[in-house]
Formats: sequence, structure tokens, C-alpha cells
Amino acid sequence: MNITHIEHLGIAVKSLETAIPYYENILGMKCYNIEEVADQKVKTAFFKVGQTKIELLEPTSPESTIAKFIENKGEGIHHIAFAVPDTNEALHELEEKQVRLIDKCARPGAEGLMIGFAHPKSTCSVLTEFCCPK
Amino acid sequence: MNITHIEHLGIAVKSLETAIPYYENILGMKCYNIEEVADQKVKTAFFKVGQTKIELLEPTSPESTIAKFIENKGEGIHHIAFAVPDTNEALHELEEKQVRLIDKCARPGAEGLMIGFAHPKSTCSVLTEFCCPK
Repeated sequence: MNITHIEHLGIAVKSLETAIPYYENILGMKCYNIEEVADQKVKTAFFKVGQTKIELLEPTSPESTIAKFIENKGEGIHHIAFAVPDTNEALHELEEKQVRLIDKCARPGAEGLMIGFAHPKSTCSVLTEFCCPK
Repeated sequence: MNITHIEHLGIAVKSLETAIPYYENILGMKCYNIEEVADQKVKTAFFKVGQTKIELLEPTSPESTIAKFIENKGEGIHHIAFAVPDTNEALHELEEKQVRLIDKCARPGAEGLMIGFAHPKSTCSVLTEFCCPK
């Protein structure tokens, strides 16, 4: 596995409208993109800090996995996404090492990335995404 | 606030002995330091990925805040630490902006850093550390 850096951190929030001013006015970051990911039932807002993006995730439906996460654990860091040269290769390597996967193949995610998730049962309880540019 | 990058992510684990092989053998990272922080009642293990460190935190006592975090929320990402040029200046700026602080002044942390925490009540529920080299 050749992880180059942390591509982004996904943070579950109840409301982008409340959270964005904290990141902008208190932390001094700039929201450069807001994007709705309809099949994930979330609205996302992106910030960049060094090599890493912060992706705020607001559920757009009570059925969203983000809504369920907030219900169970409260708002907070939801997942970590590692940048790899090739998501499919990374998923294949994980599978060979008996890591339980959520995605067996890379699929399109926000920000034009090809993404795949491993299951927290196999990743020390941290929901972990692997991603590369399309 | 002039945040340059994410200095580290703190991840609460029950056992370093179980977690380190995941980070090393599955993710291909290298544990370069193990350090006990007696006053925090934790044993820490450090990895580097791009600009950012991953700091695994194993409680050494049931009184540790990490033990309580695991009891309440389970293992997982515990805090995010932003690199700033001067921790005391950052804490001062946060206080002026009405952010609730855990530390009013910088104090020594692991890896030779001067650190200070803001309270999750003021940081969209993400326990947030600010740090700079000593």
C-alpha cells in the first residue's frame, strides 16, 4: 500500500450553515466548494488545509448514513480518506490481506475522485476511504 | 488564525499491540516513536503520512480521558491537531473570538510540541488541538 497523504477528513455536521462560519471566521479557512452528493444524501462543503481537505457532511435526509452517524455518536469526525495512486489496486491489496471492504471496486465520489471504503471492523474502528483522481 | 497544515490526528485505541500491526502491515506506515505521556495516562504510537502524523492513543488507566472516550463512543478518531506558528497566539485569538478553551496557555505535549486544546462545544463537536514546535 502506497499512501501518499491524507486526502481529506470527512466531518459530520448537522448544519453547514452553522459549521461553515466556524471554519471560515474562527479557523481562517476558505470554503471553496459546496456540492450535493445525491446518492449519499449529503451536502458537502470543502476547505483546504495544507495537503488535506476538510469535507463537512450535512445529511439531506434522515435516511442518510451521516444522519444515522450523528444520531448514534453525535457530530464529529466521520471518516479519514487516504490518497493512493490507484483506488482499485488499493482495494484489491486490502482484500488480499483479508480486510473487510464496503466497496469492492472504486466508484465516483465528490471532487472528481474515484473512491472506495474499507469497513471499520477491519480498520481499528476508523471508517477509512481510499481515493485517487479520476 | 494561520493554520499551515494538520499536524496530527489523535486516534483512540484499546490496544497499541493490536492497532500498530494494522497501520504497519495493512496500510504500510512505519511506527517511528512510542511514548508514554504519564499526565495524560496514555501510551502513544506515531506514524507519518505526508505532512500529517497519526497518533494512536492507548489509555494506561481507566481514569484516562481516552478510556472514557472509548467507553462512550468506542475506538476512533479522538482529536484533530492544527499546526500554527505560535500556540499561545492562536489560543489568545480564539479567546478573543469567544471560543471556549480547555487550555488558556500552551503546555508541553508529546513529540516536543507546545499544545493547547479548544473545547468541542465551540468547535462544531470536534475536539481541536493547536500546536507548534517548542
